[in-house]
Amino acid sequence: MENKSRTIFFVSDSTGITAQTLGYSLLSQFEELDIEHFTWSYIKDKNKALEVIHHINQISKNGEPRPVVFATLSDVEIRYLVSACNALFIDLLGTFISPLEREFGIQSSHAIGRSHSIRNKIMPYDNRIEAINFALQHDDGASLLHYQKADTILVGVSRSGKTPTCVFLATQFGIKAANFPLTEEDAEDGLLPQSIRTFKQKVFGLTINAERLQQIRQERRPNSRYATLVQCSIEVQQIENLYRRLQIPYVDTTSTSIEEIAALIMQKIDMPQGPQSRRAYQPVV
Amino acid sequence: MENKSRTIFFVSDSTGITAQTLGYSLLSQFEELDIEHFTWSYIKDKNKALEVIHHINQISKNGEPRPVVFATLSDVEIRYLVSACNALFIDLLGTFISPLEREFGIQSSHAIGRSHSIRNKIMPYDNRIEAINFALQHDDGASLLHYQKADTILVGVSRSGKTPTCVFLATQFGIKAANFPLTEEDAEDGLLPQSIRTFKQKVFGLTINAERLQQIRQERRPNSRYATLVQCSIEVQQIENLYRRLQIPYVDTTSTSIEEIAALIMQKIDMPQGPQSRRAYQPVV
Repeated sequence: MENKSRTIFFVSDSTGITAQTLGYSLLSQFEELDIEHFTWSYIKDKNKALEVIHHINQISKNGEPRPVVFATLSDVEIRYLVSACNALFIDLLGTFISPLEREFGIQSSHAIGRSHSIRNKIMPYDNRIEAINFALQHDDGASLLHYQKADTILVGVSRSGKTPTCVFLATQFGIKAANFPLTEEDAEDGLLPQSIRTFKQKVFGLTINAERLQQIRQERRPNSRYATLVQCSIEVQQIENLYRRLQIPYVDTTSTSIEEIAALIMQKIDMPQGPQSRRAYQPVV
Repeated sequence: MENKSRTIFFVSDSTGITAQTLGYSLLSQFEELDIEHFTWSYIKDKNKALEVIHHINQISKNGEPRPVVFATLSDVEIRYLVSACNALFIDLLGTFISPLEREFGIQSSHAIGRSHSIRNKIMPYDNRIEAINFALQHDDGASLLHYQKADTILVGVSRSGKTPTCVFLATQFGIKAANFPLTEEDAEDGLLPQSIRTFKQKVFGLTINAERLQQIRQERRPNSRYATLVQCSIEVQQIENLYRRLQIPYVDTTSTSIEEIAALIMQKIDMPQGPQSRRAYQPVV
């Protein structure tokens, strides 16, 4: 029985982000599938649970194939209640709680929204907020102060993806990332700009395909010299040469997501605290 | 046998963010546990897998209790290889693949890093980048243009958490969030500032405990009038009154994470596309 169209529910007693994230990973293994999806967050009491069940059960009543539910529900009773709905119930937490209890010899707390406490042990919440503010204050070379405090300084030609990457590193990992634009003049000098030269060990380069760069710049400043393919090609080529000459690690952002760029930066940059320091940079979603 | 201290490995063929996120949720149910954790990302081939296994097996050899491995490995062979390590192997993908295959009547592709395709169906990657740029251009009332294009406009007193929330909404959900500071004058007028008044239906308020606000402002501008508790208390009280009078939905950010604030905004704001539109705003980590 092949059903290529399915309704998917993400049901959580918290934001639902974890259920969605793992759900997407699993669903991406079934490419032919055509999905419609709904997220129910903050399902913390029986009434809310009954409301969700009502919606889930409606699907089958309409004659459609039964839906799939990805659930992150910490409370055993709520979980049990929702699991009885007319759907394939994928229990992302409950499935692993028993093996972990046996392994640790500890009863789980079954508490809702406790992930804060463990997160805060790993990285205080305020660090992340501080890192976001840092990224905004140090965008595009806007403030030359405090480069000393930066965990990493991203460089690259204008519109190569520095800003979104900095913002992502801050939001997801609490990493303080500054960014600094590189120009043709820097490439001609064969040196990093003066203000970041002494921090070379934390500089990471971004590059981008010249055609893609031209497209992005064209949207921003149509028909300018800045947006010509010739200009883009020269800049990209010169800056890549500079990276190689100065042995600056770099990544091509053309078809790399900010998640992937961030992971690469964290692997390659020599964080001031040493190679083990990436243990301190964990996502806190 | 109680073991309150454990080593945790997150092993992934991609960034490892999903493994960490669900891993933290599960571990947070065991509060007494003291953990040390390591992330191994981009484990895509046999050699890399063997290197990880070597590190994992080292733990037991050192006489410590066997570690726990949270794995998101799409490739069956790599998964099978790592699962034979000396650890409790929590298989976050493999566990659910078979039930889903049976349910859909489709073989899974077992492909690595395919989550892009399904993500892009839901929300093009470029939307997220655009939203990040939007957040930066519309920070703190910096640009009054394009409020029409904003999905939401966050308001609140200075330092109530508007900027990090806007950045998070953009990075995680591709939501275009502008923000606008509210002052005592606005409260005295009893009206929203002129430039955002016509967009009231997408305005969302933030508030914060006056003591906490005082603390944050004190760090920013020590010993200024702006940072006195009296000033903070007056502003907070007046602005909360304004929210109530104008029936603007609002949330207290004092002990609420940006994930939670974001989820509340998405539930309460009347997005232009109507109430079902939150289906379009899914996280894409």
